[in-house]
This record gives sequence, C-alpha cells and structure tokens, in this order.
Amino acid sequence: VSSIEVTPIGVVRSRFIAPGATPVQSALSPADEAVVEIDPRYTDALDGLTEFSHVWLLCWLDRIERDDDPPLRQVPFLLRRTPRPIGVLATRGPRRINPLGLSLVRLISVEGATLRFAGVDVLDGTPVVDVKPYVARFDAPAGEVRCGWFDTIDIADGSTPDSLTPGTDRSPSP
Amino acid sequence: VSSIEVTPIGVVRSRFIAPGATPVQSALSPADEAVVEIDPRYTDALDGLTEFSHVWLLCWLDRIERDDDPPLRQVPFLLRRTPRPIGVLATRGPRRINPLGLSLVRLISVEGATLRFAGVDVLDGTPVVDVKPYVARFDAPAGEVRCGWFDTIDIADGSTPDSLTPGTDRSPSP
Repeated sequence: VSSIEVTPIGVVRSRFIAPGATPVQSALSPADEAVVEIDPRYTDALDGLTEFSHVWLLCWLDRIERDDDPPLRQVPFLLRRTPRPIGVLATRGPRRINPLGLSLVRLISVEGATLRFAGVDVLDGTPVVDVKPYVARFDAPAGEVRCGWFDTIDIADGSTPDSLTPGTDRSPSP
Repeated sequence: VSSIEVTPIGVVRSRFIAPGATPVQSALSPADEAVVEIDPRYTDALDGLTEFSHVWLLCWLDRIERDDDPPLRQVPFLLRRTPRPIGVLATRGPRRINPLGLSLVRLISVEGATLRFAGVDVLDGTPVVDVKPYVARFDAPAGEVRCGWFDTIDIADGSTPDSLTPGTDRSPSP
C-alpha cells in the first residue's frame, strides 16, 4: 500500500478559528461545546450512539498549515516553557506525519446527523473521518500506566498554544 | 475537502492471517505479542516513546475485504449470538465507512524502528497510519461512563469472529 484514500464523513463546527487560541486537548476544555455535522447520507450509521457517554472523534487536522514534511522531533506546546524536542510519534501534537487527531469527547446529544459534544480541541471546519464509541473495556489500559514526558509536567485546563508560549501574557482561562 | 490522502508509516507483523481467528479487540488478547515495523526514515519520530507504557495504533484495516459501501447498520461480532443491528459508528467493527482501526496496546520495547507490543487485534501486514502515546489525562473520560450496547453483554478474553458465531464449536481460548 503506497497511499490510502480517506473520505470525510462530516465536519466540526466549533467556535475556534485561530489555532493558537484553540485548546491543545479536548480534556482541557471540558466546558466547551461544539457539534459534528455528519453527512446526512450516514445518519443511519449513528443508530445507537446516543447510549454512549463518550465518543472518539478522528479528525483530519487540515485547518493548520499542512506540513508535508514535519520535523520528526518537535517541542510540544506543553513543553514550550521548558523546551525539549520529542519524537512526534511520542507527542499528541497536530504537525504529524499524518495529521490525524484523536479526541475523546463527552457526547451531549445526537439529533439526526448532528452530534453535540463537550470537550473541544478542534478548529471550526475540521473534517471528521471516523466516530467511534468509547468502550471502557477496550480503551482503558490494564496494569501500570506510564505517560512519559507528560508525567513530568502540570497540565492546566484551558491550555492553548498561545497560553503556553513564553513571553505572552495569556494565561489559560479558567 | 473531498478526499484525504494518508501515508502508511509502518506495518504490523502479527501471527494473525485469518480475519475470523483474529481477536476482535486488543484488550481481549493481552498475552499476544506482535510488532510494528515503522518505516526507518521515521525512526527519529519515535524518540521518547519508550517512556510510555501504552500506545494507540491507528491502522488502515485493508486486510479484510474492502467494502466501499458498508452497511450503515450491522450486527457486531459481539452481538452475533443475540443479533441486533447497530449503527456502524456506534460499533468498533472493521467494516466502517473509513476502515480506520484504533487499538490501545501495551508497549514492550522500541528498538530502532521496531515497536514490540502486547494486545493484538490486527492482521499481519496491516498498514499503520499513526502511533500516539496513551495519555491518561487526555484519554480517560471524566464523570459517568456509559458504553451503550457493550454494557449489556459479557465480553470474553480471546473472542474472535469465529468464536462468536453461533453454530461453531470454537470457544474463546483462555
């Protein structure tokens, strides 16, 4: 397989239009709400989803400038104050080899082909390529959990690239 | 965006070559081990990954017959004994609109561009499109968790499509 073609199945509509002001992870933005507008031809594929409290959104992060050849080591947003380059596959940053985003969000409602959710780290207009239910039996690790460099930092709710950039006065909003 | 082009970054080498005999989820196969062979040109992108206990594998599930127009409601493998159609976006099955797989696996080692992991639900030869570290702060839901139809069934370790098919004698292996 040399290349894979993926079809957008929907689009995120959120209040975020500036990458620097968008929360770096959905878990850091639990009070924010947004919607996914699924292509109406796939409405039937949502049958049963409303019985789940949380879903995974797989997005194609094309709203940031696409970098066809991103650096393989990058300083993550969350390490900007104590800069240290990390292999991009050991980060959750958006400038990946394939800019696929994985966001765990709290499902609020499913009406027709519209999913309303809380926990938003996605820019307005971002294509959605898959939605999956969160299944505790599959998605919670068994045994000891170590989270590498994330275990060495404090991660504040509301963190955005701008708020994490030294020399700016923008602290995370509460 | 009408279509998105994704580049394989590696391939899974596992002992599974028959879809019907492959565990339906990595969590149901915790003792199985396999490897991801990342394209060596991306070796630097793995820097720091070894400090994580668990990683997400995002795969392109092309080893099963590709269905360009999969049914939007399907009976999941796990409901074969009590058949009930579910919207495919409310399942974790592989015959999705975009056959992207999301597997949480336990990382055993990173040597060069080879990741060894435990928890295998992926056929040998499956392309990998992204690897992400598991981050408890981002990937564990806050608050009450409801898992829809999954909450109504017992899910046995070792479950495969064959073991879940009525009329077969193949029980999940322990």
